[in-house]
Amino acid sequence: MLVSREDIAAAHARIAPHIRRTPILEESAGLSLKLECLQHAGSFKTRGAFNNLLTRQAPAIGCATASGGNHGAAVAYAAGKLNIPAKVFVPRIAAPPKIAKIRAYGADAHIEGADYFEAQALCDAYVAETGALKIHPYDARETVAGQGTVGLEWEEDLARLGFLPLDVVLVAIGGGGLISGVASWFAGRVRVIGVEPEGSRAMHAAFAAAHPVEVAVRSFAADSLGARSVGDLRFEICRDHVERVALVSDEAIEDAQRRLWRDFQIVAEPGGAAAFAALLSGAYVPAPHERVGVLVCGANTDLSAFAQKL
Amino acid sequence: MLVSREDIAAAHARIAPHIRRTPILEESAGLSLKLECLQHAGSFKTRGAFNNLLTRQAPAIGCATASGGNHGAAVAYAAGKLNIPAKVFVPRIAAPPKIAKIRAYGADAHIEGADYFEAQALCDAYVAETGALKIHPYDARETVAGQGTVGLEWEEDLARLGFLPLDVVLVAIGGGGLISGVASWFAGRVRVIGVEPEGSRAMHAAFAAAHPVEVAVRSFAADSLGARSVGDLRFEICRDHVERVALVSDEAIEDAQRRLWRDFQIVAEPGGAAAFAALLSGAYVPAPHERVGVLVCGANTDLSAFAQKL
Repeated sequence: MLVSREDIAAAHARIAPHIRRTPILEESAGLSLKLECLQHAGSFKTRGAFNNLLTRQAPAIGCATASGGNHGAAVAYAAGKLNIPAKVFVPRIAAPPKIAKIRAYGADAHIEGADYFEAQALCDAYVAETGALKIHPYDARETVAGQGTVGLEWEEDLARLGFLPLDVVLVAIGGGGLISGVASWFAGRVRVIGVEPEGSRAMHAAFAAAHPVEVAVRSFAADSLGARSVGDLRFEICRDHVERVALVSDEAIEDAQRRLWRDFQIVAEPGGAAAFAALLSGAYVPAPHERVGVLVCGANTDLSAFAQKL
Repeated sequence: MLVSREDIAAAHARIAPHIRRTPILEESAGLSLKLECLQHAGSFKTRGAFNNLLTRQAPAIGCATASGGNHGAAVAYAAGKLNIPAKVFVPRIAAPPKIAKIRAYGADAHIEGADYFEAQALCDAYVAETGALKIHPYDARETVAGQGTVGLEWEEDLARLGFLPLDVVLVAIGGGGLISGVASWFAGRVRVIGVEPEGSRAMHAAFAAAHPVEVAVRSFAADSLGARSVGDLRFEICRDHVERVALVSDEAIEDAQRRLWRDFQIVAEPGGAAAFAALLSGAYVPAPHERVGVLVCGANTDLSAFAQKL
């Protein structure tokens, strides 16, 4: 294993005092939701951020990262709690609530670049110049192990609460750090299905080509699921442990956001609702009596804009 | 006991197939949140609605109720699931999302009257004329026993997940059905503190007078916490098992709504955030190392208006 269950268990022991053990919601008809949208700073990214900052020593200048928003908010939150200075490079497409969170947590938000990749280049130049500790949003074993702790908690809490284990879990793919961690945890025990927007399918394209390739990105979920490509580490993990990648339209994602609010009173951002969209739209059709897990992975959305879509 | 733990356990066995076992969120510093805001139809009222409809036989004309909104949505939801016709009398102050839910669940919403009490009088006349089954929002043992199942689940899930039991629980008071149920469950084992808006304090006034009295109601939380008085059943239960009633300002409730969104990504209506407001505002000050439970009991709010307050 590139990232082992032991790596993930060690990460969980490390970060547990700092993160929220997010609740699971058992719904009828064999559906289990993991409400990672309730995590500190609004998404699962807080797990990987703490796992990086607790295993790697930052110099006096602190840490730096680039992010479509959620990872930036998470690094800002974690660095703030650990008293480490943080500089976050954010592209102009980032959702304003994410930028507001980055600043509220005390980090220096630098907004420049058309998309995440341009922001990453600016971050890399800053790191080369200053020696700041670079926290990559998904291409690092510490990050993947941290995100995998979602799977560990889900499995443990189902057992503790007396619910049956999952047969399959649906996980949105942006850069692929979350699904790589979750698949590393569940490897061989629970089937893992990735979910990407039709217009932003880096992992789907990598599966088709049998190696990472560059794709164009055009989806309203691009601020969290907008990766142009997946790296070798994540591709190798997913190739081995992810059954397939289901594609969902932007309309299906919006519909899933509406359903999560209407039926559950849960607010999810587009990327956070993508996994549920796969189930609602039929992009993934469960077998009879199958126990399906849906990971609701982020909530950082502008509520006014969200309300207008209802 | 007026409503015993056995009554509540029996109610839970009865309604469990129909309600959501809402998750608990364990926060650092000894704080446990019960996320009843994620219940079907958006509030705890769904518990009492099912417990009524599953224990009392409705005639062909169906059931009828009056409600500031949440109870009406809950009765509409439960009646719809059980294929029982429902007529819901709603005052004009009810939040539009609650009226929309009542209709979406298939009930006949009749909007008339300045407040809940006027709507109740219209409902009573309709029941007298038609013989419909009347589902009272809080003044019925079936309702109180149903709401008490919140306490049962909370205690069970804390133990199953390996968390310590609560020392004290904070519960908002509208008509008083919820706190009466929760206090009946925890009686003598966990301290129960009621929370009312400063401008809508029927239980606080009843405690002061040592019997139910009529109060004026003036609070922006009045659509869920707007009772002019508490009845004998609820007063007697609370007199025996509620330590005291803490009062919170409308501003403190709004602040609690903002904090629930900002720090937890949870949407709560004013009534749903009132218990948390008591903690944040200092209306209730925990002792050192005390384990405090905060019941977040409803989410039926207009998201556009909510977003404007952030």
